[in-house]
Amino acid sequence: MNSAPLSGLYAPSLSLLTDLYQLTMAYGYWQQGLQDREAVFHLYFRRAPFQGGYAVAAGLAHVADFLENLRFSDDDLTYLASLRSAKGAPLFPADFLAYLKTMEFRCDVDAMPEGTVAFANEPLLRVRGPLLQAQLIETALLTIINFQTLIATKAARIREAAGTDTVLEFGLRRAQGPDGGLSASRAAYLGGVDATSNVLAGQRFGIPVKGTHAHSWVMAFEDEETAFTAYAQAFPDDSVFLVDTYDTLEGVRHAIKVARTMRANGHELGGIRLDSGDLAYLSREARELLNEAGFPGVRIVASNDLEENLITSLKLQGAKIDTWGIGTQLVTAYNQPALGGVYKLAALRKPDDSGWDFTIKLSEQLAKTSTPGILQVRRYESEKGQPRADMLYNTAEPLPAQLTIVDPLDATRRRAVRPETAFRELLEPVFRQGQLVQPLPTLAESRTRAHREVLALDPSIRRFLNPHTYPVGLEETLHDYRTRLIREKRGVQGG
Amino acid sequence: MNSAPLSGLYAPSLSLLTDLYQLTMAYGYWQQGLQDREAVFHLYFRRAPFQGGYAVAAGLAHVADFLENLRFSDDDLTYLASLRSAKGAPLFPADFLAYLKTMEFRCDVDAMPEGTVAFANEPLLRVRGPLLQAQLIETALLTIINFQTLIATKAARIREAAGTDTVLEFGLRRAQGPDGGLSASRAAYLGGVDATSNVLAGQRFGIPVKGTHAHSWVMAFEDEETAFTAYAQAFPDDSVFLVDTYDTLEGVRHAIKVARTMRANGHELGGIRLDSGDLAYLSREARELLNEAGFPGVRIVASNDLEENLITSLKLQGAKIDTWGIGTQLVTAYNQPALGGVYKLAALRKPDDSGWDFTIKLSEQLAKTSTPGILQVRRYESEKGQPRADMLYNTAEPLPAQLTIVDPLDATRRRAVRPETAFRELLEPVFRQGQLVQPLPTLAESRTRAHREVLALDPSIRRFLNPHTYPVGLEETLHDYRTRLIREKRGVQGG
Repeated sequence: MNSAPLSGLYAPSLSLLTDLYQLTMAYGYWQQGLQDREAVFHLYFRRAPFQGGYAVAAGLAHVADFLENLRFSDDDLTYLASLRSAKGAPLFPADFLAYLKTMEFRCDVDAMPEGTVAFANEPLLRVRGPLLQAQLIETALLTIINFQTLIATKAARIREAAGTDTVLEFGLRRAQGPDGGLSASRAAYLGGVDATSNVLAGQRFGIPVKGTHAHSWVMAFEDEETAFTAYAQAFPDDSVFLVDTYDTLEGVRHAIKVARTMRANGHELGGIRLDSGDLAYLSREARELLNEAGFPGVRIVASNDLEENLITSLKLQGAKIDTWGIGTQLVTAYNQPALGGVYKLAALRKPDDSGWDFTIKLSEQLAKTSTPGILQVRRYESEKGQPRADMLYNTAEPLPAQLTIVDPLDATRRRAVRPETAFRELLEPVFRQGQLVQPLPTLAESRTRAHREVLALDPSIRRFLNPHTYPVGLEETLHDYRTRLIREKRGVQGG
Repeated sequence: MNSAPLSGLYAPSLSLLTDLYQLTMAYGYWQQGLQDREAVFHLYFRRAPFQGGYAVAAGLAHVADFLENLRFSDDDLTYLASLRSAKGAPLFPADFLAYLKTMEFRCDVDAMPEGTVAFANEPLLRVRGPLLQAQLIETALLTIINFQTLIATKAARIREAAGTDTVLEFGLRRAQGPDGGLSASRAAYLGGVDATSNVLAGQRFGIPVKGTHAHSWVMAFEDEETAFTAYAQAFPDDSVFLVDTYDTLEGVRHAIKVARTMRANGHELGGIRLDSGDLAYLSREARELLNEAGFPGVRIVASNDLEENLITSLKLQGAKIDTWGIGTQLVTAYNQPALGGVYKLAALRKPDDSGWDFTIKLSEQLAKTSTPGILQVRRYESEKGQPRADMLYNTAEPLPAQLTIVDPLDATRRRAVRPETAFRELLEPVFRQGQLVQPLPTLAESRTRAHREVLALDPSIRRFLNPHTYPVGLEETLHDYRTRLIREKRGVQGG
């Protein structure tokens, strides 16, 4: 089993990309006759990543692809049939596997478009459909959305720190596996980087690709100048010389020498790259050497464990860096490598079909208690389109005429909504009865949305450290209902 | 481009899973007529992860699969032909792409078998072959080996903390993308966990899969007891009840009630699972309740952000936990989500074919300066098979009769090797002229090796915090050569 081809890893079916308990629960629901009971789940995170104030939703396009291809192949079913119970009997009976074989996805999915700015406790995605199906897809949805949202958010922060400088992502070698790299490149582009070194990501997702040479190129030649000259012969108009293989400033001088020859031949050196040492000092020195030599247009590219805080600090120290190359810190979200997104059951159709039972997951911490209902997120905006407050409400209940938003963690904090305030509803239809409603935005469109939405936030919310908390609350009747339900559940279950 | 099917992400070709600069350098080498110059690269890390004393090598099976399938498809070449230079001309000329089309991989690869214990600065893998090819594969090798080695090492540490308890990996939902999860499940099993929740990993790699139900199962029924009863009907011999949906100890009491009914019907409850709250306190209380009720055999499974230090601490506090479920912390290696493995050129055949030029990458830090040569790692072991010291030596030069190992960071630390000391050579042939030499070990065999090799280490080296440094040095003539080369390069390049 060891040598399952990596290159065929994902083909032809990803339908087993799930935790076993989704399948055991699926069998349980089927055995209890509950498989078609209508259910509603929400996918959300409880805290914005990186101690920040917001996240950038990403991954929906891959979720849609996963759902469109959700069917169990014969190989999948053969594998499931091979699993055994503790007593050695088949874990799943044949008639259940036959049910899975013919099962067709028919849930409704509503979601924030990729690139939407999202806050803690807001559903990024809502799934409504047969209990068995809505449950079964949990793991894949979380795997895809958690990671891509995490990386898009990190990229947005790095973009914020870099301002209008060029930002390149080249973390593939340190990524968490091939797709750790591929998904990261996609999400990083969505979140705001300009290009990637990852050629496969370029091919699959249409992201611009960039890159020149490594230290080994320099080491493969007799000396640095020879190496630069050879590279310039291959790429007369696309050369960026890596200058720190032996001694950085000496490397800059070699680059200048070769740049002169290039200019004599009608070409211009594109840039130099610093990959070690003190980037503030070295970039200033390099800039001076280049300017003095008549090469003010040669760009300085810097890399070496960069992230938003280091970029900010280097800029404060007057670093002369035009292009930031970001690797490990971005593609693994090094300082917080996972977003703790969850997927919680929030409503179940009553057995007699007379309406909904709204469900809640309690926790000793109020912040971890889920919100019942069939939720929508309404974003109120100023006349200039600046988000002012978000309100979660239950679409299955009528809204009162006067809307009040209540902070679920401090019910004394309430704000009345002025009726004329403009708003958007953030969850949009993606699937109806298992069918994609309309083509999703392109990656470029989602990237534009992310850029626009992040910039529309008040700077206090975009601050890296201790940002202002953006107001997200529950519509008052939902809040009151949730509070009653918590008391009731604690009363019934807690003794 | 946005909707490239996720499910076909890796098919049919992974050959573009590389940084663009590998391809621009490939073109440069080809243009300079250097493509077939014989080169040697080593892949190694500079510091063991998690501030620990060792790593467990992993990922070689996927590397082998990648290399066996390394060829550029027509789609790949069409994409490369579409890339443009800064001036709008094709970045790669057609005759170079024609060269890539017919290129066949023909490098030699030597590597530590998966599951081998590795230390800082030791090549896990050595590639020898045409410069262009040996360079081209860098990124994919690093992506695969860096991540799987990282996770296998984390798993070995968790295994050490858990002792002989059962350890389950169920991090897929928090993994870095689908393959972040798939590769992690494989490496975690290799490093010592007993089973995974990841069904796709079970299918592809033959790893045992485990799992029962989620909170949503409980929430989908009228009350907890009804939910447990329904689950027991579906899985009478494989039930583990999650007891913390509403109130943990109340949940234990409900589990006991249902367990009594199960027993009356000839079945036994397998376990209960705690997923929140104080696991030391709750597990002791739950154990007492279960024992008093006559269920000493019901296992207690615990989860909630567990890792090796927390497991150790819980055990010290007398937690009564039989099975540890590990998610995020393991599959993302949360406290250090990347291994900084590098791939460095170390030897180049002289242009006149009269021997080798050994190459070095300098750094201001001696620890980051590479080691020249065609290296092998020799591990000296005690009579009982306990590793005592590792020696790197250059296989292209004769070894002196009396061997001395020198610490490269402190040349005053030297140890003479007694000639009768037993040793193993760690790098074994994997590819010769591009062909796999023999089938690789199965995943189960690699897992056994990892277990054996980690246990053979002195406990002081396995300590989580401030471990003893295992001696790894350079054979004296290699050390002296490297020192001369550093001086020479600094002299030539630096001044």
